Amino acid sequence: MRGYTATVTVRLKDGVLDPEAKTTQRALERLGFELDALRSADQFEIDLTADTGPDARRRVEEMTEQLLANPTLHDYEIAVEKR
Amino acid sequence: MRGYTATVTVRLKDGVLDPEAKTTQRALERLGFELDALRSADQFEIDLTADTGPDARRRVEEMTEQLLANPTLHDYEIAVEKR
Repeated sequence: MRGYTATVTVRLKDGVLDPEAKTTQRALERLGFELDALRSADQFEIDLTADTGPDARRRVEEMTEQLLANPTLHDYEIAVEKR
Repeated sequence: MRGYTATVTVRLKDGVLDPEAKTTQRALERLGFELDALRSADQFEIDLTADTGPDARRRVEEMTEQLLANPTLHDYEIAVEKR
């Protein structure tokens, strides 16, 4: 058993409205910044102990599908590193 | 001028309490998952047009310090890629 850190990035799927990102973009523009687009995402860093990297990834995939992401709204990616 | 995408990751500084992350960790544990720790972060993907990569980074640093992060509470990192 060894320690891993998994980074889960959860994004809204293309086409799902993101009013919070829109508000942030407008606020930046009001401050005088020029930008073409802004998207927001949630990131979770999970420390866990597992036999192997693939085992850690499998468990974090289950966590993501059961709780962290809503498959109707979100896409997600997972990166696993040794700790 | 060319297009860049900057990814800004905003994290709470070490030692700042994160009740949302604590709640998420407890919810995963109640579902039967074993984990050692969970941290959350906000990520912003910003598309912008700039003369050079360093110019794009400088502008995104200003956006982050003026609006996206609170320097008392947050650390941040910025990655810039050509679009």
